[in-house]
Amino acid sequence: MHAIGVDIGGTKIAAGVVDEDGRIIAKTRRETDPSDSESVDRGVIEACQELAAEHEIGAIGLAAPGFIASDQATVLFTPNLPWREHPLRDIVAKELGSDVTIVVENDANAAGWAEFRFGAARDVQDMLMLTIGTGLGGALVVGGNLVRGTWGVAAEVGHMRVVPGGHYCGCGHEGCWEQYASGSALVRDAQSALITEPARGTRLLEIAGGDADALTGPHVTQAAQEGDPLAVELLAELGRWIGEGAASVAALLDPAVVVIGGGVSAAGDLLLAPARRAFLDQLSARGHRPEATFALAAMGNDAGIVGAADLARR
Amino acid sequence: MHAIGVDIGGTKIAAGVVDEDGRIIAKTRRETDPSDSESVDRGVIEACQELAAEHEIGAIGLAAPGFIASDQATVLFTPNLPWREHPLRDIVAKELGSDVTIVVENDANAAGWAEFRFGAARDVQDMLMLTIGTGLGGALVVGGNLVRGTWGVAAEVGHMRVVPGGHYCGCGHEGCWEQYASGSALVRDAQSALITEPARGTRLLEIAGGDADALTGPHVTQAAQEGDPLAVELLAELGRWIGEGAASVAALLDPAVVVIGGGVSAAGDLLLAPARRAFLDQLSARGHRPEATFALAAMGNDAGIVGAADLARR
Amino acid sequence: MHAIGVDIGGTKIAAGVVDEDGRIIAKTRRETDPSDSESVDRGVIEACQELAAEHEIGAIGLAAPGFIASDQATVLFTPNLPWREHPLRDIVAKELGSDVTIVVENDANAAGWAEFRFGAARDVQDMLMLTIGTGLGGALVVGGNLVRGTWGVAAEVGHMRVVPGGHYCGCGHEGCWEQYASGSALVRDAQSALITEPARGTRLLEIAGGDADALTGPHVTQAAQEGDPLAVELLAELGRWIGEGAASVAALLDPAVVVIGGGVSAAGDLLLAPARRAFLDQLSARGHRPEATFALAAMGNDAGIVGAADLARR
Amino acid sequence: MHAIGVDIGGTKIAAGVVDEDGRIIAKTRRETDPSDSESVDRGVIEACQELAAEHEIGAIGLAAPGFIASDQATVLFTPNLPWREHPLRDIVAKELGSDVTIVVENDANAAGWAEFRFGAARDVQDMLMLTIGTGLGGALVVGGNLVRGTWGVAAEVGHMRVVPGGHYCGCGHEGCWEQYASGSALVRDAQSALITEPARGTRLLEIAGGDADALTGPHVTQAAQEGDPLAVELLAELGRWIGEGAASVAALLDPAVVVIGGGVSAAGDLLLAPARRAFLDQLSARGHRPEATFALAAMGNDAGIVGAADLARR
Repeated sequence: MHAIGVDIGGTKIAAGVVDEDGRIIAKTRRETDPSDSESVDRGVIEACQELAAEHEIGAIGLAAPGFIASDQATVLFTPNLPWREHPLRDIVAKELGSDVTIVVENDANAAGWAEFRFGAARDVQDMLMLTIGTGLGGALVVGGNLVRGTWGVAAEVGHMRVVPGGHYCGCGHEGCWEQYASGSALVRDAQSALITEPARGTRLLEIAGGDADALTGPHVTQAAQEGDPLAVELLAELGRWIGEGAASVAALLDPAVVVIGGGVSAAGDLLLAPARRAFLDQLSARGHRPEATFALAAMGNDAGIVGAADLARR
Repeated sequence: MHAIGVDIGGTKIAAGVVDEDGRIIAKTRRETDPSDSESVDRGVIEACQELAAEHEIGAIGLAAPGFIASDQATVLFTPNLPWREHPLRDIVAKELGSDVTIVVENDANAAGWAEFRFGAARDVQDMLMLTIGTGLGGALVVGGNLVRGTWGVAAEVGHMRVVPGGHYCGCGHEGCWEQYASGSALVRDAQSALITEPARGTRLLEIAGGDADALTGPHVTQAAQEGDPLAVELLAELGRWIGEGAASVAALLDPAVVVIGGGVSAAGDLLLAPARRAFLDQLSARGHRPEATFALAAMGNDAGIVGAADLARR
Repeated sequence: MHAIGVDIGGTKIAAGVVDEDGRIIAKTRRETDPSDSESVDRGVIEACQELAAEHEIGAIGLAAPGFIASDQATVLFTPNLPWREHPLRDIVAKELGSDVTIVVENDANAAGWAEFRFGAARDVQDMLMLTIGTGLGGALVVGGNLVRGTWGVAAEVGHMRVVPGGHYCGCGHEGCWEQYASGSALVRDAQSALITEPARGTRLLEIAGGDADALTGPHVTQAAQEGDPLAVELLAELGRWIGEGAASVAALLDPAVVVIGGGVSAAGDLLLAPARRAFLDQLSARGHRPEATFALAAMGNDAGIVGAADLARR
Repeated sequence: MHAIGVDIGGTKIAAGVVDEDGRIIAKTRRETDPSDSESVDRGVIEACQELAAEHEIGAIGLAAPGFIASDQATVLFTPNLPWREHPLRDIVAKELGSDVTIVVENDANAAGWAEFRFGAARDVQDMLMLTIGTGLGGALVVGGNLVRGTWGVAAEVGHMRVVPGGHYCGCGHEGCWEQYASGSALVRDAQSALITEPARGTRLLEIAGGDADALTGPHVTQAAQEGDPLAVELLAELGRWIGEGAASVAALLDPAVVVIGGGVSAAGDLLLAPARRAFLDQLSARGHRPEATFALAAMGNDAGIVGAADLARR
């Protein structure tokens, strides 16, 4: 059965028709105004209508950022859109017809599911996916099932505490994993290094156009790929926190694979090698158990579409 | 269908016939010599034979401490018995006959499963169970399924790291949750308080017979129940670590209930109230989500028997 | 002998003639443009000339923020003025004449010295002074001598590390004491509490005019003085960090008194009582040694003038 | 003027006549029974009498472990001897005569003073000395003066807290520097590594005779000197904690040199290089200030004798 997957972002919507093997056979997109809730609804509906006009569709999966109610019909809260307790499924169903299954899913869960079904974790039953962008998101698969939690807010991996009294987090707590293992942490650490070790930061500063405030995660990755020792060290430190946090998750869930996605994962082995090393260093009962592997996400930017479609089909 | 559950401890074996409602309808036990692997095997076999002679049995669940292979037939490693890669299922099957299903399960998992099916978590689908004895063990149920992990070593909750560079743990790492939320931690903290605040420790020391080295967890609980301020504080501190760690687990798994069992849970609300408070203080996205409840384990010392039997039946 | 003390701030200069008992017998001030280095020099010179015209002066002490070279003539670096390697003593001496001793001193050292000579620590030989304003500054007196260090940069108490991997500091490091024991920390923690415990924050938010971003340290103190439980707790937490850090200093220096000054000290016992308690809780070898006392600074805003004058006289 | 210095240990007493240049011109020693207070007194007296018979002596310095009262006459408390509030000076003076100045000093202070006057810190005015043996002791010189503190218990450097909630310390607190930067920490970390990384620990285990419990600090140093990667790493980790803690002390005291002594300092650059690197990494205001140097202690085992004698002379 073919299904539509829709990935709803802050300023644009990407949608596609996905076959049973996770391949996208048609695709469309819409720009939206994130301050206008109705324009986003309309974008979702139009994209689905366009695709459904040309393809026979059995299900629609809508992936949105934020908290999704456990009925998988309502967006409870989403950071970059004005939706609060927004009955997205029913709004879409009214226009698309009720003969097609429609489900709403958290976007990180959707992307993680795509990796589990068709990507880096397709051969295992237990997966930790970490999406390392500005923040740290993720998804969990346990025994072949997506972990949604009692109220649909599981897999908020970025808010596991890793340092008591540690860095302030936007969530109001201290020491959240996200503050140590994310693009924002990478930039902040790089800016700190420019203060404490200016002599080692010349290349980084140059790439940032001479302005430490303009420094970005991709700047650090670029410098590291050129071999800049400070940048390599900064990515290794980020990788260390990824690996150590993942070891705590592994003590709980014993996954077969840790999938690393998100923008920062473009650093590849500069990030993965230290993450893996730190994971093994901290892994409980090492030597008495097999060890999870680390893999880069394989589904790219389409993961949300593919995962949402596939989850809707189930 | 009736099933036998066997709870294999260091020095004794307890076994029972369990009906489909989790009730034990017959029970037996054997003393064993933990240094003699064969005597333990024999104890298990005899206990099962005794019960099977009087009851019609459809399955046998064997709960053992340590790591159980994912085939649920082999005990990989267990701390207090000489078993290493021990094919327990086949040894028992050889004597009991192969017409009855036999499974081997980790004892904490078995106890947690009993709470999930018949005890403190019987009405929910997602549970974190914490067994607070000398160490910190536990069990996880996600979406109604017991979490065993890829290699059968999930739910090693005590080895989630809560303090980088924190207390040494017997596992070789630092800062494991077990070193902050266990009976051993309670005793160690009490002994530290006797050094730094001797004036407040007079009652505790008295209960311990005047010897700080002889202090036990139950001593602290007794003093707290009498209202001794230091002992109350020590249990509250232990509760705080339980709650804060549970908040990290909740960020990952969003359980409906946190079940507290094990010897230290005898402290009841002296432990639970501060645990609950700390959990809520640290809970990610509090106010935007429902909140897990805390409950004392309800199945008592029979939890291992009941859970092992019920898991074998599935 | 009378001496002039000058307290050089970001936007104004306060100067006074100080007698041998630490009393100010004449006073003047100048507004300055902190972006214009010369205007600050001129302000200092004019203030001194005005006072010297009416009083017989034996010495001049100039207190400036930032790093002072160990020759006590040059301001190496100061955060709020454009001075870098600025030969302040010689600039002033050129106008005031070389028959009067002129010394340049760090402003926190000057204020601390005033407390030691005439204020809260006048009866002891070993003092830790903590100035808790936006940041955390301080001064140290050991064996009756002001601690300047080898290069004049001692008593940077705010940059002692108290949490590895802790809060980011403007200095480029993590976990500096200043990030836990300062007005900025107080505000940041209050804002975090408004996110995680909004129900308890209603009074605080009201005092801040309904805008969490507008919250200040004095708002928290006001609410605490009214008895608001959250505000009381926030000051107690700040006090805890003050006391615990002071215990580390006491392990090194064994002071007789810890003097608490700066704007946040207006909270009085709401801050001091928890600071004292935490200090004693963490004090090394407690019970085998006498214990330092905590006292509020007694010299008020004139401390810089008085201390600078007195140091110049020595 | 010549002076006698006496270094009182747990099982032996070493004494010497020291000239004004810090040279020992005569030496003697006594074995003592640490459980017999009087035998230690007698040993001290006899050693002094023996030396005074042959040399003209102006002063006697007695260096003892533990807390010395600020009158420098009384040993308040010492861990390895039965002395409590022991009037050592008067006991010795009664036999040696009152025409010679006698002072009692903490042994770590005495050793540090020897380094300051004649050894690794002889050219500076501000020094941090760290004595890294089983525990972590030390001495502080500020502005050319030994720091004794208000009650004689300053320079308990090992009990500065470096990790909140960190390793338990014998003093009853958590996270003391001593638990991260001492021979005991080295051994404990090595034993942990043998658990978590047995494959890398083969050489270490071999040196320890195959018994992890028999491992000592010198074993680790030996393996590191042979180039064993794990041992090198363990010493580097120890060095990191030394350097990071020293950076906190430097924020307070701005010393010119950090002197590293004690048994563990035998590791030389394997310890010093990482200590120096970590110190610079964590040094506050680095780049805006000169940087302290690190040096190995130069006075060897005689430091206590030389320092005690020299302090008595002042």
